[in-house]
Amino acid sequence: MIGPMFVTVERTPDGVRLLDQRRLPAEEVYVTLRTAGEVAEAIRDMVVRGAPAIGVTAAFAVALAATEAERAGADVVREVEAAGATLVAARPTAVNLAWAVERMRKAAAQHPGPALAAVLEAEAARIRDEDLAACRAMGRHGAALIGDGNTVLTHCNAGGLATAGYGTALGVIRAAVEEGKRVRVLADETRPFLQGARLTAWELMKDGIDVSLITDNMAGSFLHGGEIDLVVVGADRIARNGDVANKIGTYSVAVLAKENGVPFYVAAPRSTIDLACPHGDAIPIEERDAAEVTAPFGHAIAPAGVQVRNPAFDVTPARYVTAIVTEAGIARPPYDASLAALFSREGDQA
Amino acid sequence: MIGPMFVTVERTPDGVRLLDQRRLPAEEVYVTLRTAGEVAEAIRDMVVRGAPAIGVTAAFAVALAATEAERAGADVVREVEAAGATLVAARPTAVNLAWAVERMRKAAAQHPGPALAAVLEAEAARIRDEDLAACRAMGRHGAALIGDGNTVLTHCNAGGLATAGYGTALGVIRAAVEEGKRVRVLADETRPFLQGARLTAWELMKDGIDVSLITDNMAGSFLHGGEIDLVVVGADRIARNGDVANKIGTYSVAVLAKENGVPFYVAAPRSTIDLACPHGDAIPIEERDAAEVTAPFGHAIAPAGVQVRNPAFDVTPARYVTAIVTEAGIARPPYDASLAALFSREGDQA
Repeated sequence: MIGPMFVTVERTPDGVRLLDQRRLPAEEVYVTLRTAGEVAEAIRDMVVRGAPAIGVTAAFAVALAATEAERAGADVVREVEAAGATLVAARPTAVNLAWAVERMRKAAAQHPGPALAAVLEAEAARIRDEDLAACRAMGRHGAALIGDGNTVLTHCNAGGLATAGYGTALGVIRAAVEEGKRVRVLADETRPFLQGARLTAWELMKDGIDVSLITDNMAGSFLHGGEIDLVVVGADRIARNGDVANKIGTYSVAVLAKENGVPFYVAAPRSTIDLACPHGDAIPIEERDAAEVTAPFGHAIAPAGVQVRNPAFDVTPARYVTAIVTEAGIARPPYDASLAALFSREGDQA
Repeated sequence: MIGPMFVTVERTPDGVRLLDQRRLPAEEVYVTLRTAGEVAEAIRDMVVRGAPAIGVTAAFAVALAATEAERAGADVVREVEAAGATLVAARPTAVNLAWAVERMRKAAAQHPGPALAAVLEAEAARIRDEDLAACRAMGRHGAALIGDGNTVLTHCNAGGLATAGYGTALGVIRAAVEEGKRVRVLADETRPFLQGARLTAWELMKDGIDVSLITDNMAGSFLHGGEIDLVVVGADRIARNGDVANKIGTYSVAVLAKENGVPFYVAAPRSTIDLACPHGDAIPIEERDAAEVTAPFGHAIAPAGVQVRNPAFDVTPARYVTAIVTEAGIARPPYDASLAALFSREGDQA
């Protein structure tokens, strides 16, 4: 069975250990964060990114805060609340971060008493395990959408690096390859942070999956030229009506796919679906620092002082989304009904 | 009157002098090429780029070859033929290169005899002057398409740096600003070679025009958000039916503009229109080196050995093009009729 040969996030006796994704693909370096505040900073700085991965990371950070508070004889519940607030503020768009923190808060509320830290450590580990299982289940459901010999376009990194492992969109691709299908991947480089060039190319090459790198503005031309059979991307938040917030550029890929009759799929766990959010306009879009655009990784590529816009995400209206692949099955339009139905079903966690 | 405070290309006593566009915006460095072969290499290496600019540069290189041949007592016509063949082979997509060389060849054929080099020097200077005048005329025609307070999206660099001066798409913007209109420009950075980030931002900032830089994959989101009133781009070759070959990513911008009801304009001199080319499928698309994608300007951003696709241009079908602005007026669909008509009209060269 193929799968990432790295650990995106784990809880160690010292703290929360992250693969520093800013340094990939040049170096595979791990960093250990010793407080929830340090973890929040690492999330903001994109040491770790990807909606499911930052959810799991935040859960571990809350557990870390609880264990440290207990060790120091401090008020565990108060420290859990403070850590949760700091973590949720780190990045606004991905709902998994708030979702994971909320789940840790609920676990704390349901288990008052002396063993709370251990309860929260177990809950964080459960969130991680469920994420891994959800990715495998998404892969099983989604692999049916990929035919033998297909070329798949993906945007950003929705892989093992964006989850506790295996990946959402890349999990679907991995599962198709595990089934013996020949699959070719075109990876958008995904400016400004280059998650496609640095991360998707890196983890697919590690798995021996056939990947070719393109710049973002080439995707339309390859869709138009008939070289792409389907698109699969991840998501940072999915509204109740099926509107999808994901990495900037996703909207463009979706429009270009539809214009050329190519199916556009989103793979995401149910923790990314925000039924409280009626539609995409209600999703907050993070604007990040201009230097990500003008000086990627320290190398200036634009005139000093140029004005910049840098929204990190965009919203793809549901009408461009062919289907949404989750661990509980595949939702199709109309999404108001199909997404809500996913939550009344048992998840496929086998 | 605003206009670029630099010289993209000129004929000097020593050879052909080019502003080295690879080193912008960090440094404003000029290089002098002393043979037509050196000029061809500079065109291939993108010291100079932009369809009209490489046409003017090639004309100067042919004149240089003629003058040097005459000085050395060599066969001028033979050297002109050889120089022309070398220059045309440098880059395949932009038709202006072949057009300018063909015009120099014709001038040579019409003026056999001892003063041929001087004739060719004069012809090259005329091509340069006509390009400047064409850009000014395009500006006058095209400025009417821009309203006061408009935000204009542009892709790549179709400015003074892509022409003998003033620019095609940026010439239209400059003319609107000269008329007193308040214009805001969003410039796509234009991976892989970053002509938008390095060149468009630089030359518009020099002119004090309000420009903000975005990554290519943000354009769709801003079009969808209603922040863009119109799109203006240049062209490398326009087929008889109105299909437009231009920098990779242009097709995507055009589709996204149409999807959001935003007009998409192309500004190009008649030398970019190839009536011998029936439609876009007949336009050769140059594929460039993988390193432009994986290691822009020497800084690796992708795993070593990753596979890459790097088409430098794409073709935008005529159905996405609202109008084509030329020095002889504005052509609208159906383009088979309107483009041909441009060549029976007197050009507005005032």
